[in-house]
Amino acid sequence: MGEFDLIEKYFSWDITDSPTQSFSVSKSVGDDAAVLNTALNQQLVTSVDTLISGVHFPEDTPAEAIGHKALAVNLSDLAAMGAQAAWFTLALTLPEIDETWLKDFSRGLKALADKFNMQLVGGDTTRGPLSITINAMGFVDNGKAILRSGASEGDKIYVTGTLGDAALGLGLIQDTIDHKKILILDEALKSFCKKRLNFPTPRLIESNHIASYASSCIDISDGLLQDLSHLTKASQTGASIDISAIPKSQALEKIDPALSTSLALSGGDDYELLFTVVEHHETEFLQSIEDFSDSIHCIGVMTEEKHIIRDTQMKSLTPSGYDHFNDE
Amino acid sequence: MGEFDLIEKYFSWDITDSPTQSFSVSKSVGDDAAVLNTALNQQLVTSVDTLISGVHFPEDTPAEAIGHKALAVNLSDLAAMGAQAAWFTLALTLPEIDETWLKDFSRGLKALADKFNMQLVGGDTTRGPLSITINAMGFVDNGKAILRSGASEGDKIYVTGTLGDAALGLGLIQDTIDHKKILILDEALKSFCKKRLNFPTPRLIESNHIASYASSCIDISDGLLQDLSHLTKASQTGASIDISAIPKSQALEKIDPALSTSLALSGGDDYELLFTVVEHHETEFLQSIEDFSDSIHCIGVMTEEKHIIRDTQMKSLTPSGYDHFNDE
Repeated sequence: MGEFDLIEKYFSWDITDSPTQSFSVSKSVGDDAAVLNTALNQQLVTSVDTLISGVHFPEDTPAEAIGHKALAVNLSDLAAMGAQAAWFTLALTLPEIDETWLKDFSRGLKALADKFNMQLVGGDTTRGPLSITINAMGFVDNGKAILRSGASEGDKIYVTGTLGDAALGLGLIQDTIDHKKILILDEALKSFCKKRLNFPTPRLIESNHIASYASSCIDISDGLLQDLSHLTKASQTGASIDISAIPKSQALEKIDPALSTSLALSGGDDYELLFTVVEHHETEFLQSIEDFSDSIHCIGVMTEEKHIIRDTQMKSLTPSGYDHFNDE
Repeated sequence: MGEFDLIEKYFSWDITDSPTQSFSVSKSVGDDAAVLNTALNQQLVTSVDTLISGVHFPEDTPAEAIGHKALAVNLSDLAAMGAQAAWFTLALTLPEIDETWLKDFSRGLKALADKFNMQLVGGDTTRGPLSITINAMGFVDNGKAILRSGASEGDKIYVTGTLGDAALGLGLIQDTIDHKKILILDEALKSFCKKRLNFPTPRLIESNHIASYASSCIDISDGLLQDLSHLTKASQTGASIDISAIPKSQALEKIDPALSTSLALSGGDDYELLFTVVEHHETEFLQSIEDFSDSIHCIGVMTEEKHIIRDTQMKSLTPSGYDHFNDE
């Protein structure tokens, strides 16, 4: 099977533009480039992320999960901008043609794409060590993108979902966690954490609800403190975090408390949203998210002291998230 | 140096939107995603290509050439659609931080981007075997994209530039060519061929001139016959090629004639344009490209016989271009 057959067999999906959306596909996979109709009075939002085998996911990760995750991490970036998802391109580098792997990868990718009505509009397949780069495109109404730089002193800090689950999942898969610290963690909760790692849910629906109120937003891919430090840097503020308010899953509640806190503060790969809300919009915001009140929590407040993150005891918290070149 | 410093140091270039263009950058590198103002009455054209070290370029290729080529191959795709170049994202996977390499890579990339007023709007850096994926975006007026499928029987087949030079350059670099076949090829011509391989010129300017007349277009990346076979397949036609009319450089004129023909027919990496013009537009077309008449040549005609490419003696020509998985 050659490169051209490969694209045709696994990635030539039907385009199913929704009649309610303002953008559409004119020419998809199969020419030198895709031709796309953009949306009037909207801005294009584009994000790119690469996943490398052994770096961004363990080498034995199921292909279906890799397909899901490669798109999810990009959709999470669109969600962090307050954008509606539209299209993506796929650059897939494979060591060999493994039809079972490709079928599973394609299924995981397509299931998530379908969930958010997202169209695959172009791609490139090459031979080499396994690597997936997806470029996702979406739209926001003119001037409505939620930037990292929009937070001010006094803005309340919120997160979606629970934090640290994916990092615990990775520790379980790689067996790097002291067994004494997870004695009462049962199989169902272990499985939940692995699923949080392998099948993260991009928070596009939540993003759509918070977009009108968020003054700034970022997705938590490198760990809460690391990503919060990007927000404080871009917004020229500091932050104060109530560690006891950080939302934790049942799984994290059942492990050693110090480990649990460490994972929630610094564990990566959760793909939850971290955002701020101006104080005088808070009441209105809380009313608007009533349906999501279990999954959106206030964890702190932006402060004046530039780039410094502290807990409620004024102890300084240092970001130690994941940086791909941090051992240089 | 960490991932974030790396992006800041080498890839945070100033955005220099031109006042004459209808699209612009609202938010570039440094947030979760870029925010871009699209052009009214135009369609977005997007293309993605990956270059892998040792597959798409020899491992000892200078970093400046890699930076140039990674963007050039994508600009060539935009040119093949008749699009004006606008933006690109860069996904860069590096085995290690080598500041000299990065400086050279960045210089080669930026020089070509500046030449076509193209803005880098986002990226991702990861650690792994050297690989570069660029997603290029551009614009065409509504309905004006030149597709592969637009050719009809009787349309004349044209190419830009000369063919086979890059393949000869690769053969010289890898020392895979029988020395007896290139006895009178001097150093200047050898150097020309290597430059054609390492610094291909995307034909955006030519594309702009031919766009109103071309009924179909593709760029020649896999070899003339291979790419022509994509045109005939998409357009449901055949093609007849006058091999003696294929434009050759001085270098190809000075090597063994059989080798020269083989390289011109099947050598990849030239990134010239292959396009068709409806017969009754030909006179007007030729007048319009007078300034380019040395670099645009007619090499044949589209025929009725589906998917079959023949020479003027009616001998069938088989595509044998490069396919990344063709040894499966």
